Amino acid sequence: MTFHFDKREDFSTWFTEINKRAELSDLRYGVKGFVVFRAWSVMTMKIMYDIYEKELESHGHQPVIFPALIPSANLEQEADHVEGFSPEVFWVTRAGKNTTFEEPLALRPTSESAMYPMYKLWLRSWRDLPFKRYQSCQVWRYEGKMTRPFLRSREFYWLEAHDVFATSEEAEAQVLEDMQMTENVVTNRFGIPAITFKRPQWDKFAGAVYTCAADTLMPDGRLMQLPSTHYLGDHFARAFGIKYVDEDEKEQYAFQTCYGPAISRIYGGLIAVHGDDDGLLLPFELAPIQVVIVPIPKKGSKQAVEKRCRELEKKLRKAGFRVHTDNTDRRPGDKYYHWEMRGVPLRLEIGNREVEQKTATVFRRDSRERIVIPLADLKKKVQQLGVALTEELVRRAKARFTGAIRDARSIEEIEQVLQGRQVARISFCTMELEGEACSDKIKEKTGGETRGTRLDQKEKPFGPCVVCGKTAKAVTYVARTY
Amino acid sequence: MTFHFDKREDFSTWFTEINKRAELSDLRYGVKGFVVFRAWSVMTMKIMYDIYEKELESHGHQPVIFPALIPSANLEQEADHVEGFSPEVFWVTRAGKNTTFEEPLALRPTSESAMYPMYKLWLRSWRDLPFKRYQSCQVWRYEGKMTRPFLRSREFYWLEAHDVFATSEEAEAQVLEDMQMTENVVTNRFGIPAITFKRPQWDKFAGAVYTCAADTLMPDGRLMQLPSTHYLGDHFARAFGIKYVDEDEKEQYAFQTCYGPAISRIYGGLIAVHGDDDGLLLPFELAPIQVVIVPIPKKGSKQAVEKRCRELEKKLRKAGFRVHTDNTDRRPGDKYYHWEMRGVPLRLEIGNREVEQKTATVFRRDSRERIVIPLADLKKKVQQLGVALTEELVRRAKARFTGAIRDARSIEEIEQVLQGRQVARISFCTMELEGEACSDKIKEKTGGETRGTRLDQKEKPFGPCVVCGKTAKAVTYVARTY
Repeated sequence: MTFHFDKREDFSTWFTEINKRAELSDLRYGVKGFVVFRAWSVMTMKIMYDIYEKELESHGHQPVIFPALIPSANLEQEADHVEGFSPEVFWVTRAGKNTTFEEPLALRPTSESAMYPMYKLWLRSWRDLPFKRYQSCQVWRYEGKMTRPFLRSREFYWLEAHDVFATSEEAEAQVLEDMQMTENVVTNRFGIPAITFKRPQWDKFAGAVYTCAADTLMPDGRLMQLPSTHYLGDHFARAFGIKYVDEDEKEQYAFQTCYGPAISRIYGGLIAVHGDDDGLLLPFELAPIQVVIVPIPKKGSKQAVEKRCRELEKKLRKAGFRVHTDNTDRRPGDKYYHWEMRGVPLRLEIGNREVEQKTATVFRRDSRERIVIPLADLKKKVQQLGVALTEELVRRAKARFTGAIRDARSIEEIEQVLQGRQVARISFCTMELEGEACSDKIKEKTGGETRGTRLDQKEKPFGPCVVCGKTAKAVTYVARTY
Repeated sequence: MTFHFDKREDFSTWFTEINKRAELSDLRYGVKGFVVFRAWSVMTMKIMYDIYEKELESHGHQPVIFPALIPSANLEQEADHVEGFSPEVFWVTRAGKNTTFEEPLALRPTSESAMYPMYKLWLRSWRDLPFKRYQSCQVWRYEGKMTRPFLRSREFYWLEAHDVFATSEEAEAQVLEDMQMTENVVTNRFGIPAITFKRPQWDKFAGAVYTCAADTLMPDGRLMQLPSTHYLGDHFARAFGIKYVDEDEKEQYAFQTCYGPAISRIYGGLIAVHGDDDGLLLPFELAPIQVVIVPIPKKGSKQAVEKRCRELEKKLRKAGFRVHTDNTDRRPGDKYYHWEMRGVPLRLEIGNREVEQKTATVFRRDSRERIVIPLADLKKKVQQLGVALTEELVRRAKARFTGAIRDARSIEEIEQVLQGRQVARISFCTMELEGEACSDKIKEKTGGETRGTRLDQKEKPFGPCVVCGKTAKAVTYVARTY
């Protein structure tokens, strides 16, 4: 069995095949836009959820659970919000045998309009602030683009944090904290490099003052948005009546933010960014099985080899590793293929020689090296190799991202960069609404989207706006996107 | 502040008040049957989910995620199933501005008809079996009974395990394993005593061969069903075409089970079973905060007391406990009330004397004892007291359940037992369908439900059937129920 799909040359086929062969998802469910997530992907997504929840909690967020159904009247309370989301809503209109709802219920496309009416009831005084809550749930969005498991579907899995503050300063600081959490988790723990942007005014969340978001680079040169966070100002507080009494006994509207990391989408990024032509490649911390043990008994040595495998499994499990021994009756080569496809970071091959010499042959999935280690060092070596593998994945991904950014000084140059499956860095007139016409022109001529200005570093324009020729106030990035 | 609601005399008011005062849930969401779960309950439910998932996984289940929407055609594939569930379905009939679905989509009331069409595609050979999968999700059921947070609502949170086997023997063994897991988790970890029953034939899951379930005793003498598990035989396999090729290359229909522990409902049981007239009372393992530290500084000692509190918090956190120091400007008595209401198992009161004598005064929530311990023993003592508290909760609950069971020899005696808020144990003709008429008579005259025969012990009838006077084939239990 072999897997010959070139991730770089034909990412789309590669992605489809890896979903099938590693049994990550299934598109045959029969409802357009809806995907079944299979065990191997879900096990990693659960680890990712756990890491993200702990990060949010360590920054003062507490978990809540709100209903999945939202009365249509709630959705209509904030004008921009309803305009942005109502084309995407699935509606529950009846129940049981004969009941029709006078007011239809929306499947939540996002939970502002579910949560904020309750926030209005809960929040009274400055003592209640800041108030930071999150929930882990799925949302539904009826939209027309082609379904791709993890990357785009009508039902996806995320966390959404909704925070309330007494002042705009605190709320804007939260936006930066959200982007810091994104880096802590998505980049440092999941190993996915990202650039954080403040989005242009014409590309913000429906109802927000502004939106910040992290983009990662996909193998086909497109950018994919990972978590985004929104500064809501007091727009929603005014619409939903979220007020508090300040220390001087005066009633004030509160300021809000919301933050929405989509775990299923980030998992899609994980596959795409780290995988190679042999299959999936998982960072050590996210692998459902971190070490797979494959017994390779020769004639007469079956018992001794299996005994050794059991001992090693027990030892590694006790040390806290997720370990599995493949005792199926497949041939060793088939087992290698099976677990390489699924991205298991390390494989222990245990045969006669290893039993006799008290060693283990360790196969490292990223470099495909085989290293013979003495059993006395096993725990330490497994830990070291796991760390090294993750670091290598991150190094590669970062190098690819950095190497894919090219300065462009005209629309033609942007087009060339994008055709080379790279990202164009350009000087641009303005990220305020007046810039939208220039952005539209770029989109029309190159297919690229204007992603905003970097949050992680200040950049000086290196020429006039590539479209209108006016003085550039911003440096921005243009890429095709997901 | 005080809380004077008598759990035993007026459970309903007690339950409503504790939900408000401990901030567990909120019924003001505005959609009938839908409940908002607040942080304090969600933190415990997340721990409960985690424990249950690990138990399922240790018995060979792997997690999956299936869509929440099910095409109506799927639901109709198994005749009994659709008859049982279609009156309870919420229907999605349209989306966006103008799209109406030709085939409406059901919000899953349970996931057999979502999962089994995929099982049909995935399972091919005896080598694929047993196949054990679960998902953690919410389900929606449109039903008319009064909403009570956690105990009954139209949206609730559960795990559902769906297993496939080559033989009926293996499948029936799974039913017993499910009930064993129920005991391991619900009774031994969550501290909720339960009796496991095989339900009467007239009270089984829609489409099942038979149903087993665990009941716990509520403070008002009603029984509440906790997890149930269903032996499906090959009913669903035939309806959905789930076949496998056996070792002799012959095609066979598979045998199936499903198991559905509802975490939100078990949490309701947890409140009801353990809580007392001072508020919630949480087993040590399930408390979001296991130890709350309350500084009680006197004039001039503020700094020393706060420093000591910080040290203790750090020490306990490092030892793995969930600990919180209440540094708000409330008075100590208000803090006591606040955390007792929320059921925090242990409280450390740290004042001048404790600082000087290097001790901590520990308040134990269940017995309301205060114990002075030397700081050198802190970790060990906290652990011991946590274990002792949980054991005491379990002991009390079991004694209450056992003490509430009374033998009855006539319908009048059943009525008396039920009026005394207890459970009647009776001799009964049969649990097969022919017994339903007698069960209906009991229901009509006493309001009690016939719960089936115990799985955990064999019981001999101690007289003829209390209703028809025929020879009793079974001992069963009658109670009012949730």
